[in-house]
Amino acid sequence: MTSPNPWPAMRGIAYGGDYTPEQWPREVWREDVALMREAGVNLVSVGIFSWALLETSEGVFDFAWLDELLDLLHENGVSVDLGTPTASPPAWFFADHPDAHITTREGTVMGFGARGMASHSSLAYREAIVRIASALAERYGAHPAVVLWHVHNEYGVPVGEDYSPQSVRAFREWLRTKYGTLDALNAAWGTTFWGQRYGEWDHVGAPAAAPSVVNPAQRLDFARFTDHQLRACFIAERDAIRAHASQPITTNFMANQSWTTDMWAWAREVDIVSDDHYLWAADPEGEIGLAIAADLSRSVGGGAPWILMEHSTSAVNWQPRNIAKRPGEMARNSLTHLARGADAILFFQWRASRSGAEKFHSAMIPHAGTTSRVWREVVELGGTLGRLDEIRGSRVQAEVAILWDFESFWAQDLEWRPSVDVSHTEQIRAYYERLWRDGVTVDFALPGQDLSAYKLVIAPAQYLLSAADAANLTRYVQAGGTLVVSFFSAVVDENDAVHPGGFLAPLRDALGLVVEEFLPVREGVETTIDWQGGSPARLVATAWHEDLVLEGADAVAAYVDGPGAGKPAITRHGHDGGGVGWYVSTKLDAAGLSHLMAAVYLDAGVVPPGHPEGLEVVVRDGDDARYVIAVNHRDTPAQLAGSGIELVSGVAVSRSMTVEPGGVAVLRTSLPLPPGGDRA
Amino acid sequence: MTSPNPWPAMRGIAYGGDYTPEQWPREVWREDVALMREAGVNLVSVGIFSWALLETSEGVFDFAWLDELLDLLHENGVSVDLGTPTASPPAWFFADHPDAHITTREGTVMGFGARGMASHSSLAYREAIVRIASALAERYGAHPAVVLWHVHNEYGVPVGEDYSPQSVRAFREWLRTKYGTLDALNAAWGTTFWGQRYGEWDHVGAPAAAPSVVNPAQRLDFARFTDHQLRACFIAERDAIRAHASQPITTNFMANQSWTTDMWAWAREVDIVSDDHYLWAADPEGEIGLAIAADLSRSVGGGAPWILMEHSTSAVNWQPRNIAKRPGEMARNSLTHLARGADAILFFQWRASRSGAEKFHSAMIPHAGTTSRVWREVVELGGTLGRLDEIRGSRVQAEVAILWDFESFWAQDLEWRPSVDVSHTEQIRAYYERLWRDGVTVDFALPGQDLSAYKLVIAPAQYLLSAADAANLTRYVQAGGTLVVSFFSAVVDENDAVHPGGFLAPLRDALGLVVEEFLPVREGVETTIDWQGGSPARLVATAWHEDLVLEGADAVAAYVDGPGAGKPAITRHGHDGGGVGWYVSTKLDAAGLSHLMAAVYLDAGVVPPGHPEGLEVVVRDGDDARYVIAVNHRDTPAQLAGSGIELVSGVAVSRSMTVEPGGVAVLRTSLPLPPGGDRA
Amino acid sequence: MTSPNPWPAMRGIAYGGDYTPEQWPREVWREDVALMREAGVNLVSVGIFSWALLETSEGVFDFAWLDELLDLLHENGVSVDLGTPTASPPAWFFADHPDAHITTREGTVMGFGARGMASHSSLAYREAIVRIASALAERYGAHPAVVLWHVHNEYGVPVGEDYSPQSVRAFREWLRTKYGTLDALNAAWGTTFWGQRYGEWDHVGAPAAAPSVVNPAQRLDFARFTDHQLRACFIAERDAIRAHASQPITTNFMANQSWTTDMWAWAREVDIVSDDHYLWAADPEGEIGLAIAADLSRSVGGGAPWILMEHSTSAVNWQPRNIAKRPGEMARNSLTHLARGADAILFFQWRASRSGAEKFHSAMIPHAGTTSRVWREVVELGGTLGRLDEIRGSRVQAEVAILWDFESFWAQDLEWRPSVDVSHTEQIRAYYERLWRDGVTVDFALPGQDLSAYKLVIAPAQYLLSAADAANLTRYVQAGGTLVVSFFSAVVDENDAVHPGGFLAPLRDALGLVVEEFLPVREGVETTIDWQGGSPARLVATAWHEDLVLEGADAVAAYVDGPGAGKPAITRHGHDGGGVGWYVSTKLDAAGLSHLMAAVYLDAGVVPPGHPEGLEVVVRDGDDARYVIAVNHRDTPAQLAGSGIELVSGVAVSRSMTVEPGGVAVLRTSLPLPPGGDRA
Repeated sequence: MTSPNPWPAMRGIAYGGDYTPEQWPREVWREDVALMREAGVNLVSVGIFSWALLETSEGVFDFAWLDELLDLLHENGVSVDLGTPTASPPAWFFADHPDAHITTREGTVMGFGARGMASHSSLAYREAIVRIASALAERYGAHPAVVLWHVHNEYGVPVGEDYSPQSVRAFREWLRTKYGTLDALNAAWGTTFWGQRYGEWDHVGAPAAAPSVVNPAQRLDFARFTDHQLRACFIAERDAIRAHASQPITTNFMANQSWTTDMWAWAREVDIVSDDHYLWAADPEGEIGLAIAADLSRSVGGGAPWILMEHSTSAVNWQPRNIAKRPGEMARNSLTHLARGADAILFFQWRASRSGAEKFHSAMIPHAGTTSRVWREVVELGGTLGRLDEIRGSRVQAEVAILWDFESFWAQDLEWRPSVDVSHTEQIRAYYERLWRDGVTVDFALPGQDLSAYKLVIAPAQYLLSAADAANLTRYVQAGGTLVVSFFSAVVDENDAVHPGGFLAPLRDALGLVVEEFLPVREGVETTIDWQGGSPARLVATAWHEDLVLEGADAVAAYVDGPGAGKPAITRHGHDGGGVGWYVSTKLDAAGLSHLMAAVYLDAGVVPPGHPEGLEVVVRDGDDARYVIAVNHRDTPAQLAGSGIELVSGVAVSRSMTVEPGGVAVLRTSLPLPPGGDRA
Repeated sequence: MTSPNPWPAMRGIAYGGDYTPEQWPREVWREDVALMREAGVNLVSVGIFSWALLETSEGVFDFAWLDELLDLLHENGVSVDLGTPTASPPAWFFADHPDAHITTREGTVMGFGARGMASHSSLAYREAIVRIASALAERYGAHPAVVLWHVHNEYGVPVGEDYSPQSVRAFREWLRTKYGTLDALNAAWGTTFWGQRYGEWDHVGAPAAAPSVVNPAQRLDFARFTDHQLRACFIAERDAIRAHASQPITTNFMANQSWTTDMWAWAREVDIVSDDHYLWAADPEGEIGLAIAADLSRSVGGGAPWILMEHSTSAVNWQPRNIAKRPGEMARNSLTHLARGADAILFFQWRASRSGAEKFHSAMIPHAGTTSRVWREVVELGGTLGRLDEIRGSRVQAEVAILWDFESFWAQDLEWRPSVDVSHTEQIRAYYERLWRDGVTVDFALPGQDLSAYKLVIAPAQYLLSAADAANLTRYVQAGGTLVVSFFSAVVDENDAVHPGGFLAPLRDALGLVVEEFLPVREGVETTIDWQGGSPARLVATAWHEDLVLEGADAVAAYVDGPGAGKPAITRHGHDGGGVGWYVSTKLDAAGLSHLMAAVYLDAGVVPPGHPEGLEVVVRDGDDARYVIAVNHRDTPAQLAGSGIELVSGVAVSRSMTVEPGGVAVLRTSLPLPPGGDRA
Repeated sequence: MTSPNPWPAMRGIAYGGDYTPEQWPREVWREDVALMREAGVNLVSVGIFSWALLETSEGVFDFAWLDELLDLLHENGVSVDLGTPTASPPAWFFADHPDAHITTREGTVMGFGARGMASHSSLAYREAIVRIASALAERYGAHPAVVLWHVHNEYGVPVGEDYSPQSVRAFREWLRTKYGTLDALNAAWGTTFWGQRYGEWDHVGAPAAAPSVVNPAQRLDFARFTDHQLRACFIAERDAIRAHASQPITTNFMANQSWTTDMWAWAREVDIVSDDHYLWAADPEGEIGLAIAADLSRSVGGGAPWILMEHSTSAVNWQPRNIAKRPGEMARNSLTHLARGADAILFFQWRASRSGAEKFHSAMIPHAGTTSRVWREVVELGGTLGRLDEIRGSRVQAEVAILWDFESFWAQDLEWRPSVDVSHTEQIRAYYERLWRDGVTVDFALPGQDLSAYKLVIAPAQYLLSAADAANLTRYVQAGGTLVVSFFSAVVDENDAVHPGGFLAPLRDALGLVVEEFLPVREGVETTIDWQGGSPARLVATAWHEDLVLEGADAVAAYVDGPGAGKPAITRHGHDGGGVGWYVSTKLDAAGLSHLMAAVYLDAGVVPPGHPEGLEVVVRDGDDARYVIAVNHRDTPAQLAGSGIELVSGVAVSRSMTVEPGGVAVLRTSLPLPPGGDRA
């Protein structure tokens, strides 16, 4: 973040979507802006895929249509998030620069005709993106409609890794910068194993398809390199824009839906975090994945308000079964994002495309037009957001952090791990879901960051944990924090090498144990553990056991059967400073996690608020008021406690109000008294 | 069709198969012709894969063995369907013309060693096929054995699409011819979406593997191009033969088993339609798929008699489990083809090959030889067909048409459709199967053709429907026809662009409604609809709902639950002229379709004949007699009503006869009186 | 085998594992040798993946570290199995010889970074392996630590086939040598089918990916060629070593886990058979697969003692779920190998690697170190083996042989077979498992070898059977042997051509029948057969029926339902000399095989020993004593009959002893009196 208050220069909550009028004649443009006014749209993203129209051949620009469009929008009071079209270079670019094509791991050179993403390491591409970004910024840096710059689109998807010759060369240079010497690289990658030792820099390549499993440290570095190169493309464009324009600059992430880019590192480079989110239709509780994405978007930006750059009014088009949203669902989704910190609610896209790969993606104006249910709800949502201006800039409060570390995910997802049943996304979802159902708001965090503000830190999937980060977690628990670590954590260091001392060794002091051996469970086998602590219970455990050796920790639950039979399953290690380190060596089901977390909450001093089941409630605190945003996911009314004004309806609330089935409410209430001091 | 009566110059029903004696020594040839006489074989297909033996190096021909073979066959009264061997060019051809190898979408260049299909766009291949076809026609155009020419083999399988450089060049030329200008191409493909606009013809390519989904209109055009190029290969050979020979010319289709080629367009180029059909063994009612294939073969040829060029005496070899036919099944299959218009019953192949990829394919002479059950049944079938001479040339009658449009299938099968559970083959099979069980004979038809002869037209899967074709369907229903349209129809135009006005808009008048939104159902979820019309019922609906807006149509059934709950599910729109437009917005099971079609039959005036279940009956009308062909699929006797002569047994029938379990019967009876006029 | 007694010059049972200390600093080396002494380790494999460290650039050698290591091991009484590192050439090799990269069937050129296996046909690779093998042998041929040479590692995995240009050229030469003339090749491959006839040697290529199924005889020859080329690489290294060293030479096979190499042919080239074996974790009875592998390793070596070169102390790392061994399981596995002929028990590997693709593979010293359960059991096993010195060289006795023929497997696994439900591994496992449960020890055998020593020969999966081998089996049964042949046997000859006379024709006399037609059963369908012989029963049959024509054989069981209903299912054909030929035309379940084999044992005079269920017992006979090795797989004690000394405990046994739950016992007892003569 480079500016103290980088929000786009516009009032209230931003509302709108991607706008690609180049697909329609001018009369539709005029209809569009009239409808935008009707719906309360005040921000649209323009030009995301317009390179071929803006630069018709190398260095030849045609801005006339965009001039006209921006003027039209401005005249109608619609601000513009101006895109750089670099996610899809034109046909002429690939024809003139065939070496800019992406090559797959198996050696297939990707063709043109989709979203023509080019190699992140192509010099021709780097030159071209700076040229188009500079030209746009130079022309529109002072245009009054432009309040935000939108670089590229969804870096890392549909493809991130590139195995082309230029990418291999760039990888080699990146490694040289990182390691300095080949000895350092050989040591980091453990190349002595399987006889891979390199004697010349020129012999080092990308981890292309090979006869067997490729060196995991090499693959991990290639993931880092890919992230770095994509980010370098972003930075090149950002800096080109900054030379001519002063509006904030963003690029849209895909939190909880793409793992190619390290959002923490990217968030440091953008002025405002923005995110795209699409429900996963096969999940009947897609709202939980949505909440994860929203909390992650907020967390990587340090809690600052963020932009929901894209979501859908109804069905998407790229899933196996693209389930349409039911009445009210779009508003619930939108308000949930807002509750979790978004101050801009945008859609892909304004008007449904008749042609192309995404014609079955819903839009603010669907194919059925303005007589449709979707359009009516779009107008209604615009009205709702218009009544929430004052929320802008308020902050979400969280006492609990869940660790989310892209490097660890990259490492864990490599081949030849102990069991295919172990998944970081599954474990993070399981713990998050438990907290979500308990109404406990969560931040995501890095293992190496300052965690002292949190009463509870959970590490559901910290497979890769450097010694330094482990020391940070240990300090946290020694200083009184409560730490929950799930199985298959702290296994390897930053080079995907097993820690000296064995699995979990770096957290030995924090947790009071070591893991002697992993005990994966056969497919589909259900085992039992016996919770011996305060409230005895039999819990279900699947997929994974471990052979633990306790060094101070107490066994809270033990394996009854399965490979770990008779051994500790869940342990608790109390520290002198009041901190507690929990270790959970198996995969629990929802009931088991509930049992576990009840005990953990007690240790941490976390008190779940006790909202009715199905009523999602998040609190944002402004300077002068607290905003309680409630989303009712069930089909019966739900009671929300509190007094103040419900902003959507404008009705005063005394002690309690009803949130309608499938409805939303935003209750402005007073800030609590600070607990003995300022809470900053 | 170019000749009024193109049937091969031979008497009676043709009977035989593919004959590849080049695999055996001369003594086997002599045994073969003796056995052919024993079995009543009168037509064999020769030379289909003989290029390497006929043209031993470029331009060097060896016809001696074929001369000898044709003479031997002629001496023994066996006519010849002479093949051009262009489905499998020789090794020397690929060695001399490496650029003729087919390239896959992912860039793999296909090797030699299978059926060495070459690139349809290779100039070397085009030259070579004309050379060999000309040489064969010149030499054998006047040979008395040759009564038919058989160009190539199964165009479009095992591979149709080719992404080689020469194919890309040819595609570009084809597009240039189709569109004239790049502006027209850009408009048709909607290239403005995702920034794909082309500024130079040389930048346009084939839809090779790309980072994301390739432009669907481009892919649809590539499917059309592939079909066109394959057909151009056929036409080149056909014209080369015609320069020297006057016998009719065919090529064997694969109705209901391959979708690469547009059989309607191909049928216009051949003199006689011929078809290969193989049971799909995993389907316990493979006879229904067979009936579809046979009806389609007849329909594309305008109802004219056609040739069953290949089927199997027992198991095939290329399916996961190659189920052998049980006693009598081969005869039932053969007679069903004949019932549905085939006047030639041929097999792949005469004698089982000891070597090669197809050695486990059954044959008329199986590996077990002439002591086998299969051979006994082959001889028996020959006898049966020998008693059916008079049927030749008679015509199948149908009052109902089902739309079958390859372009629509190509478009529907592209990526990113609303739900993977929607399948045109499933929907066509479902409706066809209902009619098959009801004993109602069906033609297949194109949406743009004259449909006035049909009482009922069903569109189970007309995803792509041009405005002109929609107008044709609208005229049909306005003129009194009954039209049934199933969900996900009339969605896009000929460029895969959503129709202005939304889904189903072009059939708005015909059906009295529009579709506001698609509502795919989650995997495995079963929902209920409530039929509110004449005979109330609860029906099962799966996979798909829609949000319908009625504009005149009556809701006959409504969704009880699922995403469409409370909305209309099935509608009926009556027209002033007596026509009725039905719309079915969901996937019904067999019971549901039965309920639906009972009501539809009443509207259409279609009266199912009421044959016993499992007795398949089709009627062919000759000039002087009606032939009722009955195939008993069940293991108990079945009664067939009618009077006349049963031709297989020669027994006179009065009012009713018994068809034995698993047996067949061909009843010659008198033609009905025309209903007030000639029925042409 | 070239030397009469090639066992490494060391005492007792060898114990140890792969040792790759180049991954650790010198202090770890010193700890290692101390721990080796503690564990009783007397043999380690060194240098398997050390090429990059030994030859740092082409022709530049660095032996200093290996000198030091061998000296250190020798000083500590640990012998060395010295590897040639040719399974993983260095990075510089591939950089300097890019044409040595392996190419897949689809044309992908495999990269470096895994185990960098090179093309077996690369001239550069052949030169390089001879250079490094010669250099090692020259330097260490006289080193006192070196008692065995270990060429390469697991030939054929991770990849065997290579479609690179140099491999294609070599294939062509190999074919030229094999066939002499193109006419012979064309005849053998049946190229007349599908028009594949070759007119020039240069047109013949490898069976790369093609538009359809490639000629099966070509693919079979390519499998033979691949095996031959790999073996030629071995021979080149072996001969290079022999020029300088006199120790025995081996290479490690992967019996029952890799099918790329023909172990029978390889066993003729090595001095000692050695084998790697890993439990298949998804199989809850992995010990049966282990027993198959051990029996096969013994059998290919003609019954001579062999080396278990690798197995695991606990979990491996490359399976979907890598199940850890439970306490005692490692010892049971090790003793089972020993029981079945292994006189060396080695592991991969000594110390777990912290880095690389195999870091989650268990080791003798796991990541948890020497306080772990695994290490304790390693030390205990060392003690156990130390008490079994006298067993070395004793021989396993077997009365029954199961045919195991790699060429047949290669042919059967090609495409387009009658049913995907027919599997040679499934059928061999099914028959073996029956015998294993009955306590009957089995040899594996080739169909063409002298079988006269066996009372019973079983052919569960002899799809390919040459006429000569069929004659051998016929002689065996005519001479009084009992032969059991399972379905889909004797189908094709050595060129994958169906035998003249039909399926099973070459065994017509032996079995008294022919197979008229295969009758695959639909997926998941269960049928019944009626056993009409001595003990009537209804048995379950699945996957496959056949239509048998009996020519002398008696129908012992008949199909009740399914495609074969009413026909014979199992037949028995008695010969004048007392021999019996059984034929089983369907897939039986465990109960059915039990019923069948009870009758077969009676015919063969095989008497199952009647050990308790779950107690695996194998007998090895030495010159002066019989050793009864018992492994108790169940969790209750089991009684073992016999008198003598139990060698692990040193306790005397009179008539019977108890084998503890999960325990092992080795009972030295006296040799039985020879049955009327010497038993050699």
